[in-house]
Amino acid sequence: MADKLQLKVLTACVYVVLIKVVCISATSPWALRSIRELSSQNDVNVSLPAGFKAYYYTQTLDHFSYKPESYNTFKHKYLVNWDYWGGNKGSYPIFVYTGDEQAIEYDASGSGFLVNLAKQFKALLVYIEHRYYGESMPFGDNSFQDANTLGYFTSAQALADYAELITNLKMNLSAQHLPVVAFGGSYGGMLASWFRLKYPHIVIGALASSAPILYFEDITPHDGYGVVVSNDFKENSESCYNTIKDSWSEINRVAAEENGLTKLSQIFNTCTPLNSSGEVKNWLSSIYMSAAQYDNPPRDRIGTVCNAINEAPAGTDILGRISRVLNTSAAATSSCYNLYQSTPSNHSGWGWQTCTEMVMPIGWEANQTMFEASPFDIKAYTNSCRQRFSIEPRPHWITTEYGGHDIKSVLGNFASNIIFSNGLRDPYSSAGVLENISDTVVAIHTEKGAHCLDLQVPYSTDPDWLVAMREKEVSIIQSWITGYGAKYSTKLLAKKPVRK
Amino acid sequence: MADKLQLKVLTACVYVVLIKVVCISATSPWALRSIRELSSQNDVNVSLPAGFKAYYYTQTLDHFSYKPESYNTFKHKYLVNWDYWGGNKGSYPIFVYTGDEQAIEYDASGSGFLVNLAKQFKALLVYIEHRYYGESMPFGDNSFQDANTLGYFTSAQALADYAELITNLKMNLSAQHLPVVAFGGSYGGMLASWFRLKYPHIVIGALASSAPILYFEDITPHDGYGVVVSNDFKENSESCYNTIKDSWSEINRVAAEENGLTKLSQIFNTCTPLNSSGEVKNWLSSIYMSAAQYDNPPRDRIGTVCNAINEAPAGTDILGRISRVLNTSAAATSSCYNLYQSTPSNHSGWGWQTCTEMVMPIGWEANQTMFEASPFDIKAYTNSCRQRFSIEPRPHWITTEYGGHDIKSVLGNFASNIIFSNGLRDPYSSAGVLENISDTVVAIHTEKGAHCLDLQVPYSTDPDWLVAMREKEVSIIQSWITGYGAKYSTKLLAKKPVRK
Repeated sequence: MADKLQLKVLTACVYVVLIKVVCISATSPWALRSIRELSSQNDVNVSLPAGFKAYYYTQTLDHFSYKPESYNTFKHKYLVNWDYWGGNKGSYPIFVYTGDEQAIEYDASGSGFLVNLAKQFKALLVYIEHRYYGESMPFGDNSFQDANTLGYFTSAQALADYAELITNLKMNLSAQHLPVVAFGGSYGGMLASWFRLKYPHIVIGALASSAPILYFEDITPHDGYGVVVSNDFKENSESCYNTIKDSWSEINRVAAEENGLTKLSQIFNTCTPLNSSGEVKNWLSSIYMSAAQYDNPPRDRIGTVCNAINEAPAGTDILGRISRVLNTSAAATSSCYNLYQSTPSNHSGWGWQTCTEMVMPIGWEANQTMFEASPFDIKAYTNSCRQRFSIEPRPHWITTEYGGHDIKSVLGNFASNIIFSNGLRDPYSSAGVLENISDTVVAIHTEKGAHCLDLQVPYSTDPDWLVAMREKEVSIIQSWITGYGAKYSTKLLAKKPVRK
Repeated sequence: MADKLQLKVLTACVYVVLIKVVCISATSPWALRSIRELSSQNDVNVSLPAGFKAYYYTQTLDHFSYKPESYNTFKHKYLVNWDYWGGNKGSYPIFVYTGDEQAIEYDASGSGFLVNLAKQFKALLVYIEHRYYGESMPFGDNSFQDANTLGYFTSAQALADYAELITNLKMNLSAQHLPVVAFGGSYGGMLASWFRLKYPHIVIGALASSAPILYFEDITPHDGYGVVVSNDFKENSESCYNTIKDSWSEINRVAAEENGLTKLSQIFNTCTPLNSSGEVKNWLSSIYMSAAQYDNPPRDRIGTVCNAINEAPAGTDILGRISRVLNTSAAATSSCYNLYQSTPSNHSGWGWQTCTEMVMPIGWEANQTMFEASPFDIKAYTNSCRQRFSIEPRPHWITTEYGGHDIKSVLGNFASNIIFSNGLRDPYSSAGVLENISDTVVAIHTEKGAHCLDLQVPYSTDPDWLVAMREKEVSIIQSWITGYGAKYSTKLLAKKPVRK
């Protein structure tokens, strides 16, 4: 179950984007993430955000091998916004968004803060799509065929893509001397911070928003995600929290009765008969998780869910209250609830990534959260990946390649110019960097706010704490650029001592 | 020609090792490097240095892809010296040698300084072989078959090998908390510094001896290598330098005469008739280059060459003097000189590496050095690689992956704990880091001394400047370990702020 839940809730800022895209719909958005799971990585019917133009770079298939096929190339999509750039004559920066698990248009639409930044810094905005998402398909329509075509789908290859593309783009713009800053949210935030760590010669700094880089191996307690969701709900309404917490055993009790599934189908008014109680439990869990992960102002997602539960007519029993939650979700049709059958797909990009290297051990024992017990089970996880992709996860690779253990000790005297930003209502903040690592590798977090909030379009109605968070980020980024300019202009480049 | 020269002189500390191994031979050693070119990467008939035991780790074939064959494994050889280790209960360090382009026994024999260090620090010594050298052949005897088997032969894969092996070794020793320091010389020195840059969570620091990490693209003038060789000779003897400088046109003049090659064969007393004057010019060039690169005390290699030239009987002409140089080389047999026919082999590990990513543009125009003009020609270089391995070099990859441009600016506020050590007589020092980059990324160089001298066994007869160099290195390494221990014992590990 941990696997399924993880697949449902992880990890993109896309949700924010979808909210923006679909917020005029009558359908409440929180379960859209689930719908997207199956369909979206190839969904390129997205309109280009205003001000952006699409380009394609001839990208190397395999940066780390020299087999004959390594030299194959593919059309790697990226977006550029030229509107605010001061040009290559001064020291105007280039802001690069390290694309994540979605078509790059979603990233561009969902991180409007960067457009504001570009205006302020006269920056060139470049959004680079992640390979195997959107249009950046190394083997075209056959990219998801099997491990032979999917095999090049790794975070290290994606980072090397960014390095190669940026280097070539700067050369073509005669802009080799300009500072580049990386930005990203969620998985893209992880990539932004890793990009700074692995390619400091390409980017002078990184803003990593809501990047759960510590959700690997045993660095973060497995239940971190679930505990934050539970606390979010408890904080909103103790009775709501208790109703949810009590609902699982109630569902199980009814399911165990004679014709229990039929009864549950009636209680939850599902369009088709339930095959297992897990279908409704998974759907409900994903609603709670999404509500917490994307509980960003001005919306009040948890409030909406809890109101549905709490404001049921007096005397409504637990499952009656809980069934009202479905009405807030994408499952709602005019006459019944169409619970999505979450058969794991072998055409999900994020599914592939979680089945290879992005093994986040999310789970919990009984009584740690408001959820039913669902411990992380690496064996079941591995079996599911074998079935789905005929692939074996490498659960230790991320920490071997990027670190994570003892991060303060390791990066305290190594690395610089990274901002880890988090909203503590975001369940993924449990695995974020929440404490300054050094003077220049810093953590900015707010008590309020959830996933990737700082990257969204700023509004005049934004709360003060959000305004303050962004101001702090701007001031730090300004200091990186100023510092770079100072060094560049005094030409502190390596000079060789002359032999006497 | 640049290609051939490069292949001949690059880059290992092995030469030092071979000197040790063969120094009782009557044959002077400087051309042995060339002989080794064809034969040695599979030469595992080397005895294990005293105190070392050999082990094999089941290594991942491809760390950066998830194709079915990526999961194949191979027996990855490493050596351990347990003699001095204080054990896993204290904070005794692990010193790792990042193996380079030779069987690992050569590395262990050639870097006796580490044994002294191990005694001093009660350290565990681990020497890890580089994949595709020695016994660490991913496809056994077929490893050099073609690009399908050679394709996984890259520096990034090698670094990931080291990361994975060290992580597993520490786990097996219950020594996860112990600090690891990386050491390497020449190409191995490049690997040691890159390892610290890319895997700061695995190693707390690196000593990179004679690492020409700046000999890529246009960072270092192409003629840097040749200029240092020439200066080394000029400093030893102006007349020797002039004789060499004048010899090329003299060789060309004779070669252009009727039966010129026959005359040259006679002058140089070659065992077989020359096919081109290039054969003798290449051989001579490699002698001069090797003499400079390995001109380490107590030996006086350049002096030996120059004495042969200068001490010819009065009236000996230029080529007569130059022919005496062959007598100092491995070409000498009892009755003639057996010039090695340097047909590029497709079984040379270093050949493969220079034909894929290690593209060092070594060359010079007329009059820049004592050598004949031999500009670096990327087209000829590429053609030669196509013929040799059916492979296309990626001359920009190293700087894309590891940087190098503006290194002081880039690493000045990023990275820590790297020592770049160089002897300025070493031609490769022209592309070394010779200036401190920051307080903790430092350059140590000596006016005297050539390639990898500091890593060799210390002797009581070592000159003061060498003793001082090593003392400085020890003191810096000590400070890394002390600093690590202090951080570790106060447990400055990341703590999460508690939400109110």
